[in-house]
Amino acid sequence: MEIRIINPNTSSSMTASIGQAASRVAAAGTRIVTVNPADGPLSIESHFDEAVAAVGVCEEILRGEQAGSDAYVVACFGDPGLHAARELTRAPVLGIAQAAFQMASMLATRFSVVTTLQRTVIIAEHLLHNYGFAHQCSRVRAADIPVLELEDAACCSGRLIDEARRARDEDGIGAIVLGCGGMADFAHEMSAAIGLPVIDGVTAAVKLAEAMVGLGLQTSKHGDYAFPPAKIFTGRFQHFSRPA
Amino acid sequence: MEIRIINPNTSSSMTASIGQAASRVAAAGTRIVTVNPADGPLSIESHFDEAVAAVGVCEEILRGEQAGSDAYVVACFGDPGLHAARELTRAPVLGIAQAAFQMASMLATRFSVVTTLQRTVIIAEHLLHNYGFAHQCSRVRAADIPVLELEDAACCSGRLIDEARRARDEDGIGAIVLGCGGMADFAHEMSAAIGLPVIDGVTAAVKLAEAMVGLGLQTSKHGDYAFPPAKIFTGRFQHFSRPA
Amino acid sequence: MEIRIINPNTSSSMTASIGQAASRVAAAGTRIVTVNPADGPLSIESHFDEAVAAVGVCEEILRGEQAGSDAYVVACFGDPGLHAARELTRAPVLGIAQAAFQMASMLATRFSVVTTLQRTVIIAEHLLHNYGFAHQCSRVRAADIPVLELEDAACCSGRLIDEARRARDEDGIGAIVLGCGGMADFAHEMSAAIGLPVIDGVTAAVKLAEAMVGLGLQTSKHGDYAFPPAKIFTGRFQHFSRPA
Amino acid sequence: MEIRIINPNTSSSMTASIGQAASRVAAAGTRIVTVNPADGPLSIESHFDEAVAAVGVCEEILRGEQAGSDAYVVACFGDPGLHAARELTRAPVLGIAQAAFQMASMLATRFSVVTTLQRTVIIAEHLLHNYGFAHQCSRVRAADIPVLELEDAACCSGRLIDEARRARDEDGIGAIVLGCGGMADFAHEMSAAIGLPVIDGVTAAVKLAEAMVGLGLQTSKHGDYAFPPAKIFTGRFQHFSRPA
Amino acid sequence: MEIRIINPNTSSSMTASIGQAASRVAAAGTRIVTVNPADGPLSIESHFDEAVAAVGVCEEILRGEQAGSDAYVVACFGDPGLHAARELTRAPVLGIAQAAFQMASMLATRFSVVTTLQRTVIIAEHLLHNYGFAHQCSRVRAADIPVLELEDAACCSGRLIDEARRARDEDGIGAIVLGCGGMADFAHEMSAAIGLPVIDGVTAAVKLAEAMVGLGLQTSKHGDYAFPPAKIFTGRFQHFSRPA
Amino acid sequence: MEIRIINPNTSSSMTASIGQAASRVAAAGTRIVTVNPADGPLSIESHFDEAVAAVGVCEEILRGEQAGSDAYVVACFGDPGLHAARELTRAPVLGIAQAAFQMASMLATRFSVVTTLQRTVIIAEHLLHNYGFAHQCSRVRAADIPVLELEDAACCSGRLIDEARRARDEDGIGAIVLGCGGMADFAHEMSAAIGLPVIDGVTAAVKLAEAMVGLGLQTSKHGDYAFPPAKIFTGRFQHFSRPA
Repeated sequence: MEIRIINPNTSSSMTASIGQAASRVAAAGTRIVTVNPADGPLSIESHFDEAVAAVGVCEEILRGEQAGSDAYVVACFGDPGLHAARELTRAPVLGIAQAAFQMASMLATRFSVVTTLQRTVIIAEHLLHNYGFAHQCSRVRAADIPVLELEDAACCSGRLIDEARRARDEDGIGAIVLGCGGMADFAHEMSAAIGLPVIDGVTAAVKLAEAMVGLGLQTSKHGDYAFPPAKIFTGRFQHFSRPA
Repeated sequence: MEIRIINPNTSSSMTASIGQAASRVAAAGTRIVTVNPADGPLSIESHFDEAVAAVGVCEEILRGEQAGSDAYVVACFGDPGLHAARELTRAPVLGIAQAAFQMASMLATRFSVVTTLQRTVIIAEHLLHNYGFAHQCSRVRAADIPVLELEDAACCSGRLIDEARRARDEDGIGAIVLGCGGMADFAHEMSAAIGLPVIDGVTAAVKLAEAMVGLGLQTSKHGDYAFPPAKIFTGRFQHFSRPA
Repeated sequence: MEIRIINPNTSSSMTASIGQAASRVAAAGTRIVTVNPADGPLSIESHFDEAVAAVGVCEEILRGEQAGSDAYVVACFGDPGLHAARELTRAPVLGIAQAAFQMASMLATRFSVVTTLQRTVIIAEHLLHNYGFAHQCSRVRAADIPVLELEDAACCSGRLIDEARRARDEDGIGAIVLGCGGMADFAHEMSAAIGLPVIDGVTAAVKLAEAMVGLGLQTSKHGDYAFPPAKIFTGRFQHFSRPA
Repeated sequence: MEIRIINPNTSSSMTASIGQAASRVAAAGTRIVTVNPADGPLSIESHFDEAVAAVGVCEEILRGEQAGSDAYVVACFGDPGLHAARELTRAPVLGIAQAAFQMASMLATRFSVVTTLQRTVIIAEHLLHNYGFAHQCSRVRAADIPVLELEDAACCSGRLIDEARRARDEDGIGAIVLGCGGMADFAHEMSAAIGLPVIDGVTAAVKLAEAMVGLGLQTSKHGDYAFPPAKIFTGRFQHFSRPA
Repeated sequence: MEIRIINPNTSSSMTASIGQAASRVAAAGTRIVTVNPADGPLSIESHFDEAVAAVGVCEEILRGEQAGSDAYVVACFGDPGLHAARELTRAPVLGIAQAAFQMASMLATRFSVVTTLQRTVIIAEHLLHNYGFAHQCSRVRAADIPVLELEDAACCSGRLIDEARRARDEDGIGAIVLGCGGMADFAHEMSAAIGLPVIDGVTAAVKLAEAMVGLGLQTSKHGDYAFPPAKIFTGRFQHFSRPA
Repeated sequence: MEIRIINPNTSSSMTASIGQAASRVAAAGTRIVTVNPADGPLSIESHFDEAVAAVGVCEEILRGEQAGSDAYVVACFGDPGLHAARELTRAPVLGIAQAAFQMASMLATRFSVVTTLQRTVIIAEHLLHNYGFAHQCSRVRAADIPVLELEDAACCSGRLIDEARRARDEDGIGAIVLGCGGMADFAHEMSAAIGLPVIDGVTAAVKLAEAMVGLGLQTSKHGDYAFPPAKIFTGRFQHFSRPA
């Protein structure tokens, strides 16, 4: 089975890092393909970055359809373009935020999210509200780390552990969800340091994707996620055109 | 005052029609500028269409900033790219769905939405949930009309009136919200036919924009809608790059 | 167009102050008429004060109907008698709390309310719950100022700014809503001091009323806000009687 | 113990009927006093009727305080003036809607409400939302009976039973709540006819009042329901004035 | 009337203490019978303890049916087995958490819960969510007292009062709900110390049970709480078998 | 890896059938152990049946701990005893309702549940409310089939397909969740017949369990799901005693 992991930003080093994290948990028969759009933001830290990145996510889904991928993971915590991506394929498409929330809700009755910048807190809160996990999440916390600084592990590890420890001691929770696709490498160290499950969405989504493919479950094509109506697209987006 | 109305799809005839509806309600001192992206889908009928259109919306905001627009209206009922658009400017940015829901909630304790295709029902339901109007909306109804067929007034008018009448008689409501930016021209005829207020989001948003500019209110730049962090964008999107 | 602003309490100095705030934002063609009931509480600081004031609000609506007003504003943050007032007229009727919440929700994803006394916090929370804005409001804060002390600007300004600054720094918000009709004069100074949009409901409601009249939208007379059934009223309220 | 039942409308025949229903369930040591305001609407069928009636409710509470009542029941299903009434006394104050919902939620996991006119449906829905019973109520149904026609038992009984039977067969419920203080006399006949518990709020509130007095529980005077701040009232309401 | 109070744990001293509290508030004609299962946990401090105790609760209901009890109270704050218990009888069955929340919601617009151990906080939060009181409860607080230590009154009283005082001063509330069936004896002392109503669920449930019996209301046997389908049970539970 | 699937009822033929369904989807390295309690109800169709079965579920968890199981599945759609079971082990414990809802929410924006008897509808609705999926589920439908009749495939298949087809045509959904652990065998035939994903919770839970074990995620032992405090149990339950 081929799982195509789409890093929605254009940082190839983060793409590589995400791929390594994914490969570590993939089953024997799973082939991990990790890609990122050629065009888009180098990191995703705002609604605007998400909006631009969503186009790249859709294009990578279409590319994956050519390649015959069996499932997709959108590896940015805002789940940018997730609904759109699901319209474009019968294969399961997972967002790492939704995947992480689901895992957390089976391990603890309450969890907190530790994310990067304060401004992305609201993005996580919107997702919790939409997915139905708002009452299970005590608090979304920002560690005040720009996304690309996550690659400097030495620097970030301490700040993430400190924030997670505060969550454990103040929020009445049983688990931590990591609020960024670039944090996968910190999960084990954090969990060891604070004694709680720490859930990384990238690896969670890979295993959920394997589960869904194993069950033969596919994205519904009745109604909500049906293929988009064929139509004309113009300009830079004319490659999306299909005759009606 | 200049209000820039952005039709997120690339149908220039719909853009013209939206502009006419807007101009009919604009105050004496208001200059209506109506634009649509050069690049994007000819109509918006899916999550995917919305995702692509959101980029064009953002670009038109940036173009408006050059022109010194005082407020913006995103004239597609899914409010595509609304959060992102608000990050890009201090001027107020209105989505026609949010505008219409607000008007409806002041005219009646319950309303129904009449939209185009069944598949866009879910988009309206998500917005109702996010904006907090879910318990005030009895039902989102589809009249089974593709967006571009709305230009054939003779054909559509009857179907819209029929659906609105069913809403009036079955849903226990006091007002109807039109679920598409291309329906503005039908509002008066429908209201006359069924005896209820019928709210078109385009005109509602124009008047709300005038209200906000008149109050000197601007999009918050503290936290949530602060300008996006400057960063590198690549490829087709490199024009969004700004040095950090 | 005539907008009748009803100050539900009987403080004529507050009525005058509300009228001045309204007039500063009214459009050229708008005539602001400001009234308050002859009978009722001098200020509104409890559920009981609201209950009594609601009768005066209804009477002022009926008086406005004689005068041919085009829209009404109920200028007390608890929106006392708002549903009842809407039943009595086809003209739009705005409550300043609902108006302010709506403006805030278009400028920021999260806001806080700064009100007068701790005991009115619950009134604001009920309105947020009823109108659907509860998840967009981080916190309702009391500055511990009795309503009538608001007329002592020198004294109150500092306390309001302090409370708003705490909201900005602790609540993760982007905008402040003023929780009293008597606070209109403080909005600009507060906004300048803390760098966030500060929304006064009186002026917000005036511009929303202009918008609704401009759109030709009227309170629904189908079902929910239909005129009350005619019936006998006795005693002090017999002037409300109409033959069935 | 004296329980003062306040019929908020001015129909003395309905007051008498309510008193009889209450007396039938009162404990041996309970003295039922039934009153209605001298001034106000003859029946309550709109938000406006409720707003006017709330003043009378408050006055009857104050009168009861002189008489030394131990508890109060506001005997109109909209619970008009309930929050205000609770501010005016240390004694428990019960609304018949809240009382009935509470009883229903202990007898069945889902219930429906059968009320009088379609336009009062929204009032019941607001109360369900405010009190937290919305997800336990399947549907609020109107039997299309004006309040005062309830006194014509022969005429109404059949229509109420028919509506309750439809609720039983279509709504997936286990109990019926009667949505009007004037329906108390129908409860037993309806319950016998459809085989479900049918809850009348008047009698429910009487027994809850006895329970609260028996427990020595009193309305909180800390914060939310503290006595209203003393202040000047003018005109017809100057008897509410108390020196600050 | 006989009210059977079931202490779901097997601590006979706590059963006696609960019985004394109940007897103090019971009406003249009420016979309080207090029982606890012979088999089960000595105290209930976890989901697991609750699960085991629920079987004993059901058995005591069946025993009460033999004895002809008129109502039942499940006297543990988690309301263990409440839905199941209601299926087994036509008599009203009350849980002390639901009873206490209902009383609190009539005395104040906001309340806090003071319970024993931090781990039972989540149980109270689940109940608040299920019963619909979540938005009326500001906070569930743990006083860090194991259930059986409650019998050492000297030791616990101070800690409970301290926690209740913090609730009063920090939570913006008007009433306290005691979160354990073993706390009944502390209610009056706490109320006196902090000046707020303090609601004990055991006594609240006794009076609510009297109220329901007085009204002739019985658990619905239509649908939701209908008697369980007859069937075979095996092993230790074969006494539950009834031929289909 | 060993996954212990606990059928909470005592029907060994249903246990066998569940085991076969689980084995069909298990990965190569997964050993499926299927058990049911010796003591308990032959089928689970009421709150009472669930309460009794929960004890057996807990005992099978403890037995699994002796055997060293890596994960557990509670294979009854009401998820009886799930919270309690999670307290007893560090291994992941999955309920088939929660597992199925999670899968459905990734395949479609709306789903309906098809369950057995009308009286179990309320159990599913409670779970949807608790887990946060209520707004994603359009309707819970009963096919009016007693649990044990599910073994008569010829008889049930048609009724299940009919109900699922009505859900597809009337509920505006994209996926079906099967509301009983005994329905696993019908999923493929139903999906083929109606053209929608049909999700069986047993197989969904098996694959989720594999995913969680593969990620090294374990049930949190901080706070919410910490091991129960050691204490005395009496009578039939004394084997649960552990010295404090």
